[in-house]
Amino acid sequence: MKTIILNGRELSFENVYKVAHNEAKIEISEDAEIRIKKSRKIIFKLANDGYPVYGLNRGVGWNKDKYVFSEFFQRYNENLINAHCVAVGPEADIEEVRAMMIVRLNTALHGSAGIDPKILHLYKDFLNNDIVPVVPRRGSVGEADIATLSHIGLAMIGKGEVFYKGKRMSACEAISKAGLEIAVLGPKDGLGIVSSNAHSAGLATLMVKEVEDIIKVSNIAYCLGMEGLNGNIESLDKSVNAARKFNGQIECAAQCRKYLKGSYLHKPHEGRALQDSLAYRGAFAINGAVLDALNYVKHNLLIQINTPDDNPCVLVDEERLSVSTNYEPITWVIGIEMLNIALNHMSKTACHRTIKLADPSFTKLSRFLTPSEGNVIAYGTIQKCFTSLDTENRMMANPSSMDYFSLAGNIEDHANNSPLVVDKLIKIVDNLRYIIGIELMHAVQAIDLCGEKNLGEYTKKVYEVIREKIPFVDKDRCLSVDINKAYNIIKSGKLLDL
Amino acid sequence: MKTIILNGRELSFENVYKVAHNEAKIEISEDAEIRIKKSRKIIFKLANDGYPVYGLNRGVGWNKDKYVFSEFFQRYNENLINAHCVAVGPEADIEEVRAMMIVRLNTALHGSAGIDPKILHLYKDFLNNDIVPVVPRRGSVGEADIATLSHIGLAMIGKGEVFYKGKRMSACEAISKAGLEIAVLGPKDGLGIVSSNAHSAGLATLMVKEVEDIIKVSNIAYCLGMEGLNGNIESLDKSVNAARKFNGQIECAAQCRKYLKGSYLHKPHEGRALQDSLAYRGAFAINGAVLDALNYVKHNLLIQINTPDDNPCVLVDEERLSVSTNYEPITWVIGIEMLNIALNHMSKTACHRTIKLADPSFTKLSRFLTPSEGNVIAYGTIQKCFTSLDTENRMMANPSSMDYFSLAGNIEDHANNSPLVVDKLIKIVDNLRYIIGIELMHAVQAIDLCGEKNLGEYTKKVYEVIREKIPFVDKDRCLSVDINKAYNIIKSGKLLDL
Amino acid sequence: MKTIILNGRELSFENVYKVAHNEAKIEISEDAEIRIKKSRKIIFKLANDGYPVYGLNRGVGWNKDKYVFSEFFQRYNENLINAHCVAVGPEADIEEVRAMMIVRLNTALHGSAGIDPKILHLYKDFLNNDIVPVVPRRGSVGEADIATLSHIGLAMIGKGEVFYKGKRMSACEAISKAGLEIAVLGPKDGLGIVSSNAHSAGLATLMVKEVEDIIKVSNIAYCLGMEGLNGNIESLDKSVNAARKFNGQIECAAQCRKYLKGSYLHKPHEGRALQDSLAYRGAFAINGAVLDALNYVKHNLLIQINTPDDNPCVLVDEERLSVSTNYEPITWVIGIEMLNIALNHMSKTACHRTIKLADPSFTKLSRFLTPSEGNVIAYGTIQKCFTSLDTENRMMANPSSMDYFSLAGNIEDHANNSPLVVDKLIKIVDNLRYIIGIELMHAVQAIDLCGEKNLGEYTKKVYEVIREKIPFVDKDRCLSVDINKAYNIIKSGKLLDL
Amino acid sequence: MKTIILNGRELSFENVYKVAHNEAKIEISEDAEIRIKKSRKIIFKLANDGYPVYGLNRGVGWNKDKYVFSEFFQRYNENLINAHCVAVGPEADIEEVRAMMIVRLNTALHGSAGIDPKILHLYKDFLNNDIVPVVPRRGSVGEADIATLSHIGLAMIGKGEVFYKGKRMSACEAISKAGLEIAVLGPKDGLGIVSSNAHSAGLATLMVKEVEDIIKVSNIAYCLGMEGLNGNIESLDKSVNAARKFNGQIECAAQCRKYLKGSYLHKPHEGRALQDSLAYRGAFAINGAVLDALNYVKHNLLIQINTPDDNPCVLVDEERLSVSTNYEPITWVIGIEMLNIALNHMSKTACHRTIKLADPSFTKLSRFLTPSEGNVIAYGTIQKCFTSLDTENRMMANPSSMDYFSLAGNIEDHANNSPLVVDKLIKIVDNLRYIIGIELMHAVQAIDLCGEKNLGEYTKKVYEVIREKIPFVDKDRCLSVDINKAYNIIKSGKLLDL
Repeated sequence: MKTIILNGRELSFENVYKVAHNEAKIEISEDAEIRIKKSRKIIFKLANDGYPVYGLNRGVGWNKDKYVFSEFFQRYNENLINAHCVAVGPEADIEEVRAMMIVRLNTALHGSAGIDPKILHLYKDFLNNDIVPVVPRRGSVGEADIATLSHIGLAMIGKGEVFYKGKRMSACEAISKAGLEIAVLGPKDGLGIVSSNAHSAGLATLMVKEVEDIIKVSNIAYCLGMEGLNGNIESLDKSVNAARKFNGQIECAAQCRKYLKGSYLHKPHEGRALQDSLAYRGAFAINGAVLDALNYVKHNLLIQINTPDDNPCVLVDEERLSVSTNYEPITWVIGIEMLNIALNHMSKTACHRTIKLADPSFTKLSRFLTPSEGNVIAYGTIQKCFTSLDTENRMMANPSSMDYFSLAGNIEDHANNSPLVVDKLIKIVDNLRYIIGIELMHAVQAIDLCGEKNLGEYTKKVYEVIREKIPFVDKDRCLSVDINKAYNIIKSGKLLDL
Repeated sequence: MKTIILNGRELSFENVYKVAHNEAKIEISEDAEIRIKKSRKIIFKLANDGYPVYGLNRGVGWNKDKYVFSEFFQRYNENLINAHCVAVGPEADIEEVRAMMIVRLNTALHGSAGIDPKILHLYKDFLNNDIVPVVPRRGSVGEADIATLSHIGLAMIGKGEVFYKGKRMSACEAISKAGLEIAVLGPKDGLGIVSSNAHSAGLATLMVKEVEDIIKVSNIAYCLGMEGLNGNIESLDKSVNAARKFNGQIECAAQCRKYLKGSYLHKPHEGRALQDSLAYRGAFAINGAVLDALNYVKHNLLIQINTPDDNPCVLVDEERLSVSTNYEPITWVIGIEMLNIALNHMSKTACHRTIKLADPSFTKLSRFLTPSEGNVIAYGTIQKCFTSLDTENRMMANPSSMDYFSLAGNIEDHANNSPLVVDKLIKIVDNLRYIIGIELMHAVQAIDLCGEKNLGEYTKKVYEVIREKIPFVDKDRCLSVDINKAYNIIKSGKLLDL
Repeated sequence: MKTIILNGRELSFENVYKVAHNEAKIEISEDAEIRIKKSRKIIFKLANDGYPVYGLNRGVGWNKDKYVFSEFFQRYNENLINAHCVAVGPEADIEEVRAMMIVRLNTALHGSAGIDPKILHLYKDFLNNDIVPVVPRRGSVGEADIATLSHIGLAMIGKGEVFYKGKRMSACEAISKAGLEIAVLGPKDGLGIVSSNAHSAGLATLMVKEVEDIIKVSNIAYCLGMEGLNGNIESLDKSVNAARKFNGQIECAAQCRKYLKGSYLHKPHEGRALQDSLAYRGAFAINGAVLDALNYVKHNLLIQINTPDDNPCVLVDEERLSVSTNYEPITWVIGIEMLNIALNHMSKTACHRTIKLADPSFTKLSRFLTPSEGNVIAYGTIQKCFTSLDTENRMMANPSSMDYFSLAGNIEDHANNSPLVVDKLIKIVDNLRYIIGIELMHAVQAIDLCGEKNLGEYTKKVYEVIREKIPFVDKDRCLSVDINKAYNIIKSGKLLDL
Repeated sequence: MKTIILNGRELSFENVYKVAHNEAKIEISEDAEIRIKKSRKIIFKLANDGYPVYGLNRGVGWNKDKYVFSEFFQRYNENLINAHCVAVGPEADIEEVRAMMIVRLNTALHGSAGIDPKILHLYKDFLNNDIVPVVPRRGSVGEADIATLSHIGLAMIGKGEVFYKGKRMSACEAISKAGLEIAVLGPKDGLGIVSSNAHSAGLATLMVKEVEDIIKVSNIAYCLGMEGLNGNIESLDKSVNAARKFNGQIECAAQCRKYLKGSYLHKPHEGRALQDSLAYRGAFAINGAVLDALNYVKHNLLIQINTPDDNPCVLVDEERLSVSTNYEPITWVIGIEMLNIALNHMSKTACHRTIKLADPSFTKLSRFLTPSEGNVIAYGTIQKCFTSLDTENRMMANPSSMDYFSLAGNIEDHANNSPLVVDKLIKIVDNLRYIIGIELMHAVQAIDLCGEKNLGEYTKKVYEVIREKIPFVDKDRCLSVDINKAYNIIKSGKLLDL
């Protein structure tokens, strides 16, 4: 198994994905080791000097005016972990919790939190030994995910539950079985563990690949649909897209040209429309807007997982500590809200394209793609299914980041609800797997009905993968079964490796 | 076990609840038996006469121009069921599917659908023998829940899966084990099974009790909080509320006066504020608005489950058939959207009251209700939890009924998304169980801290039920555990039987 | 001019409308005179006894703990008015401000506010002498419209501006010209003037008629469209609607039967569809849902304008004062949010019907209702116009009542934003005038193209009114002009008096 | 007056702003002249060859299958303009229409539309001669703003109204007075005039400066508030912000350091809190997120106004024509939806900061910043005003781009509602001028009350500008007046030139 070396500054989305899926081990770089030790010294010096520091020798939140005395550091920090364990179900997936841990560990390697290096090693050991704390996913409001990340701290001090090599057990037992030691919390460790955006950033990071994949899958479904529809691909022309200069549009048009290489659509064909409906003509440009939105998110999320989000922030090189606003992730959180809106456009146009494939006035094929009018209903009612999922997506495209309360004695008068915002992204993408799955079902049925064999090199393989699992609809059958198969084909990633 | 006799016109919310929870058997009244037989005859006559009828000898939806020949009635109707099985997970709960079945059965007893009486008996037999089809909950767009109710028809023709006495098995096996026979579908039976609002109406019906309960629980939590806060209960005065004349306000004020009977709040008390914050002063009026909204829903939902929603509609007494708009449930669907908004006000004010209970400037108790300032953090971070759930509620209070597509060749250019609208109600109420659970935790902690023993007769019992499960917070502990306990106390209904 | 006698308990929507439009004078009933005098005595007694009363000898809001000494009553109450004048533009219309004043006056006649009878007479005198204060419409958050109603108080003390007989001038000048006297504020008068929901309730009251009218106009447009489309009116059947029992549906179906009396649609006609699209088949049921929602609003709004919403509330008969929650209007505010959602369904289906009228596959007429294919474009692009207005309506159908801050030192932790909620209603209805105006334009063009002369008795008159202003589109012309004419026909109310 | 030379590729936001405000003349570059002539030749060749081209010799939208014969080009194109004039009020401002015209002209200079060069010169002549068509602002759904831009075409053919040197008159009269000639439309000219995103892009372009300005003003208000509050500016530290790497945060922190140069906040001060509330501590980071969102918009909007958005698109260099998706502006439209969300965070935190300034527990000053407790109410009720505007902003932050219909015979099954999305941005920013205006009023009042004289070099000047117009609140006065003054100070741009 590959080993990834973390230094706080160079963590890639791909590596988070690998570690989350337990496909790589991690190590801490030497320079990071030096930095976190140095940082810890700075913390101790400040504690000894009695310099008032938030979360160190003063309380957090509204309690920022309350003293914490050094002889009570352990108890205070354990209390802090306990009192912050306020999340409710459903639970985060194992990969998601692993993503949270690697992100928290990486950002802590700047030394800005001043966490005890032993604790940071425990993150690494948990990940490498496959100990995954149980973390209920609801409870944090962003502006650091303290209500949920606390559950990771809880496991570290031997409380609560974890999955150890996939089996659920008490944290205490798992730590013992893995030959590790329970964490002893010192000054600022509690705050350091909980005060991070690693929950939402970790989950968002995992979604980068999922969104990239769904864009590709949507482009494929569009191309396959064009082949079912005998559509006009002139708008994919390289020059005309280059003239427009939007990155996403250019990139998606290029993807589609690849998928359709060799297709009969490149040749004149009887009955082809001068221009298709906008959801066809512009599919790749709309998906391109999703890509543009994703790139905004990626740019800022990459900063998020490679820079410190601690407050106060230890500036190790300058050997000092500063109050900071670095906990604020709003830039990429609103990026995800834009992405949710962009995906809603993908969702809506996928629905419109699928509706077109069932409409003889566009396809010149049978109504609802029935193989036998009057005898087989085929894809009539299925329109309710995918549009109802789009309606759910519409609801989730409404922003939530600004709907917060002023908390903690009005000290905490801003928030961003990043965990909810990311959960909506997860849900939208999952619904899209159904929606586009049904689009693919329509596309291959249309191709079968029109009898055209000269598909693109890539789309032909896609056609075959689908038809292997989902046979031609020659008579009515329970379509829920087909829909779930189509969903699983997309979810498996199979369509992208052809 | 009690037996409920259905006649199509007098089904109560309570009886739906009982049958759904398998606490009652059902029978069909004699007059209804006569009506459904007479209706069936009318249908056959029309079929024989060749009179064109939607869903009988003509297709449905866009296929309304396609002929269906009588020799193919069975095949056509089975096809129809199959082609309408397009729903996706998650699955509806067993009680929910039972509610769908009893509602569909009752409305069919008007004879307006013309369904074969044997099929209607099968609904009864399924319910009485505890055969519950597996129904994925997403896929319908309202305007009849055809994409989901079809899964009940699927089980009736021996396909798909069911729960038989709680055990999952094939429909075929369960029907055989129960000594029943698989349905043979005749003219219009397919349409009759699927074309009904029984999915969303059934689920909504179950929620009537849940909303009534959560209003009471919220009133209780408010009263208990008042006792923790030493609040001013003058606004509960009977005369002053009578003057205002809003039904819900009057009723909720009465509930609260009952809960607080005997409380020390009726006597003067040092340090009591002249007026409390609006979320306290007006709690019962805001909950009263929820009750008013619920009453609007109840009025119209009771119509829904006791009148025919078939199209075409057999008018049995007049021995004729009419095209109808009776499938349209929009009046109560927008009522539920109002209810979701109303519950959001309950949710927001519950949060504000809970925040107040942790604020010394309102309670004159310790910050965050800690038993020991500086040593125990207590209810600091927990504010993130309940407000994050409120944020989710805020999102779900946005309406969804109008976000639909024009489907089926643009024939279906209105919808209302009733299943999604009801699902949001279910989710909001469930989140409220957490939110109010935490409010109750705060209230009893405040009562303990202020040391007041003279609670109301009713609130004292509530206090005891909570403290039996959730001890005083004397030191920091994992609060997720407490939150789940509070949730379960509410969910159990225990607080309402005292 | 008619005189309306106010007694606090029997004010009708119609009379508010009349007074607002300066079509009636008002008087105060004798029993009300007695009550307000008695109430004033109670207030003075309490003030003299030093009994602490909110807004009397104690401050309001967060200042509820501050003393107000009797020698400073006038100054305090003038300060209060000034400090509450915080509204911003645009300004309310003259009718709207008049509606605010009559509503405030009527509810004050219960004596619950304890306002000086002289001040109440000044409301009457302002109305009867046509003095209308300038009131900027934005600034209040509901829960009493204190930030805007204050501007009426400002005029009463001779400050700010008013319209006097339609001419803008200083309040001072107008009062002098009208031979009235500037108000001298005594104890609790400031609070009594500002602390009322009369702004939002007044505006909502005016909208009752507007919504009733738009429902009728929508029903008319639907009927006229049916005549253009050669639609199937079987779903308007009295029996089949009676079976369903929804009030609104029954009432709207009856309206439509009246409009279509004598129409050719009652007779068989070649080429008529078995069933029309849902937006046609169910038009009156969807409009019926708007009516049901409106009836909910009316029931509760009528309570609002005829009961006291004061806090504290003087109970005159019991000769005492009570803290109250009666300022809380949430029940009807969420009713308006439901109404906004309901109107969005009207808006959407009007759009779908209009789109159908331009579609030959539904009308068997020309595309876009052109009189000459290839030469005249006619109603192609106009679809952008009405759907863009529907999109705006969709946005405004999102609820706003719960989006408030916790204000005034967290004392005011509930609000409902009633002025904004009502403003959205106003805007939605206004947009509907354009949308339905365009539907009417389509309907008459379709009627001309199909050449059918046998319209309903009522719809024929409507047809003529429209064609009088808007001629047949025989060649392309600037359609904005036609749209504005159609809007004005609806706005004028002309279509309802035929 | 400066002259700006347009070549289609290098138009800056600044120059659009200048031309829109009539501060510059324009010319067309020589190479552009050559390109548009060459393009026109290509169009004529295609027309002559009978090659089927959308909008040239074939109709547009659903009429894409209808022939347009060359002898009818003028009539067809005039019809097209007329039939596309379907917009409704309110009217766009003069600057806004000018922005539309320059943007349309610039993008047309690529020659991709093939518009007659004479028509393009007329755009230039209208701008240089100050002829500004009356354009109602509502009616387009994005995906080219055809329903509104048509009104510019209407004026060019001498119909409708314009403002000529600021005076409203008929287009015909104005063109004659200016010595210009009415346009004669040839092939594809109608489509070329209307089919562009220049309406929404023009308005969005004008907003770039407005958003940049409001960010600066918000940063100023935050800094001034910090001086009123005696806040802790440590989080503005250069190193700690550099560590976080978000561009917007770094830039806004730098701005704030500039504004606060020389302020007493740089020195230790009695009573200063360890950390301020999040809306203070993070103000510049939140505003930084607005800047990041704006930069996304700017990047893509600059592409929009400098690349062709025509379909079909003449590729001049390749001497051919291609179907294109280049009309699709969705990438920057969703960027504006993100920006609206970002500005909502600015709005919310401005409100929270202002609330803090009125709260003695944060400022250690008087409640509501009164100069005399018990005698003067000062800034109590004003909180309703700014929070009610924020509630409106919250509503407008909900996205609208996806709420569209499938139009024109379902050919147009995607849209983006860009004009509405931009109008919401305009409204949000305008509301922010009030909200931040009130924040500034609080800040200077707090500074006066705390008596601190050592303000920052820049903030001191700001303080003086405000105090020049709005005196210290020493007694209650009508605050609406002050609010409007504060609004106007911001609107004037005065605070940014100090």
